Amino acid sequence: MLEDKNQSRTSLSELGEFGLINHITKHFKINHASTVKAVGDDAAVLDASEQQTLVTTDLLIEGVHFDLSYMPLKHLGYKSVMVNLSDVYAMNGNAEQITVSIAVSNRFPLEAIEELYAGIQLACETYNVDLIGGDTTSSTKGILISVTAIGKAAKEDVVYRSGAKDTDLVVVSGDLGAAYLGLQVLEREKQVFQVNPNNQPELDQYTYLIERQLKPEARKDVPKLLKELEVKPTSMIDISDGLSSEIMHICSQSKVGCKIYEEKIPLDPQVISACEEFDIDSTMVALSGGEDYELLFTVSIDDYEKIKGNPHLTVIGHITEQNQGMNLVTRANQEIELKAQGWNALKG
Amino acid sequence: MLEDKNQSRTSLSELGEFGLINHITKHFKINHASTVKAVGDDAAVLDASEQQTLVTTDLLIEGVHFDLSYMPLKHLGYKSVMVNLSDVYAMNGNAEQITVSIAVSNRFPLEAIEELYAGIQLACETYNVDLIGGDTTSSTKGILISVTAIGKAAKEDVVYRSGAKDTDLVVVSGDLGAAYLGLQVLEREKQVFQVNPNNQPELDQYTYLIERQLKPEARKDVPKLLKELEVKPTSMIDISDGLSSEIMHICSQSKVGCKIYEEKIPLDPQVISACEEFDIDSTMVALSGGEDYELLFTVSIDDYEKIKGNPHLTVIGHITEQNQGMNLVTRANQEIELKAQGWNALKG
Repeated sequence: MLEDKNQSRTSLSELGEFGLINHITKHFKINHASTVKAVGDDAAVLDASEQQTLVTTDLLIEGVHFDLSYMPLKHLGYKSVMVNLSDVYAMNGNAEQITVSIAVSNRFPLEAIEELYAGIQLACETYNVDLIGGDTTSSTKGILISVTAIGKAAKEDVVYRSGAKDTDLVVVSGDLGAAYLGLQVLEREKQVFQVNPNNQPELDQYTYLIERQLKPEARKDVPKLLKELEVKPTSMIDISDGLSSEIMHICSQSKVGCKIYEEKIPLDPQVISACEEFDIDSTMVALSGGEDYELLFTVSIDDYEKIKGNPHLTVIGHITEQNQGMNLVTRANQEIELKAQGWNALKG
Repeated sequence: MLEDKNQSRTSLSELGEFGLINHITKHFKINHASTVKAVGDDAAVLDASEQQTLVTTDLLIEGVHFDLSYMPLKHLGYKSVMVNLSDVYAMNGNAEQITVSIAVSNRFPLEAIEELYAGIQLACETYNVDLIGGDTTSSTKGILISVTAIGKAAKEDVVYRSGAKDTDLVVVSGDLGAAYLGLQVLEREKQVFQVNPNNQPELDQYTYLIERQLKPEARKDVPKLLKELEVKPTSMIDISDGLSSEIMHICSQSKVGCKIYEEKIPLDPQVISACEEFDIDSTMVALSGGEDYELLFTVSIDDYEKIKGNPHLTVIGHITEQNQGMNLVTRANQEIELKAQGWNALKG
């Protein structure tokens, strides 16, 4: 998982900015007819269409969002694209283009940038997205990546955060909490390594957790699945900051309340065993862990039969009137008010 | 010009990310019918149109692209938008939306971010652009801004860098070199201040230079003017890295050569006098100074009568066949090969 450091080093100053842009973009293919002109002019050019355009952007900064001592650059490139595509899928749209800007300090050789872009390219190929532009510059410290993703959806298909209605079901894709626990495992191994660099880490029982942290996948399949099931969500958001924070966004923008059932929250067996080992509450991890990049959405109760039993989807609660508040119903059948702590809450 | 530091300070952690986003975006109005949903969901939503979409992005980093000791934050916000709009205008399009992502270290209070966004807002209002999204995060060092601009143009109006033809005229808007000299003046004043903080700077004879550095304006008027004159450029680029670098982009992408006449390069009187004072060659400054954000374009020789004598436009040379190379014809009628040094060349 942790890749060998490339031993040969090419200084970025040998190439210059335009040489670097050519070098890192020449392996990217253009797949969408809507991409008229990608890299190489003042602006990229996209063709008109009958559909609406979705635009989202995210910034990832070394020392804030990632630690290169356990995040390989290729994975970082891949993840920086996923984080943005996830936002397009959360609008029930399809991502078609990205721009990627990077700033790197002179401690990074060309080979490091190549690794980063290899991950970006893999993401573009896997998710059928065209790289259409960006900016490359030097930084005074570390590496940072700014990605903007552009997608499309028919006007009638776009799903906002604001459409949830009383009695709607609350549904989540996949399972929650694994990415946060993957981070805990990696941080513990880093500390062990600092004390004893000869220690060989035993990570077999954490493979799913680590993969969810280092190589998350955006749920491109979910909007497609919902279309096949003939279900249009009434609201949708992606889970980047934890279930609690995201359901609160839906409730506040939809002017509704909710009840989430603790026992319904989907958890992978590795999450349950790691929570025992780390002595953390698994519900707390799912609510506030973040970085799962699953989709959280609401559907009309009339659509229950269509989604019932689908292995990708779990009904975890329902929408209520706003004056009932936003609550977690515990396994002991107690109602606790949800708090938006985000993933930082667990760090302190 | 250099603004008072605000004395009251509000910690960013008091607000949190979503509080900060609400706080800084609530003063922005949405002006374009094509902006269906701006800030506040996973992605912004833009409406379909018959036109092509132009997308461009730039990254500005403290210590690399700007120095806050003489760049007021409001100006920085304004300039960070201009840099991007300029790229849209250089495609002969109109900018309609921007996303702005910022990362700030905890040395910045809320009031500093407000200043930055006041400049962004002024730019949005002046240039009729909608802020539709972004990301705000903390940085481990300094401040950085990543802007993506989105524009529109009819398919037949889009101008690429690649369309210049032999015998076309090379035209530039405005005048060149002032922004670079403004930077030299500001850096000199910074050094004087460090030696003697009580020294009162005398900047009256540099006002144009300093304004061009701190508050550049993107040439939104030029595509409009060209349309009125019924001139469609054959190629166009904005001058961010200096005339030399930009004409070389046009020539290499168009597979042509060029002759640029030194005596034709438009220079402001303040540029000429500052060059004498700093003992720098004014042609060198125009060729390699950068940050002018003027438009450089080529037009068919048949359009000469339409642009002749226009106070906004100067014909500085013509396109040749590729095998003739890219050359500067000096005042002494010597031909010198153009070199793409960019604005860094002057720094060393």
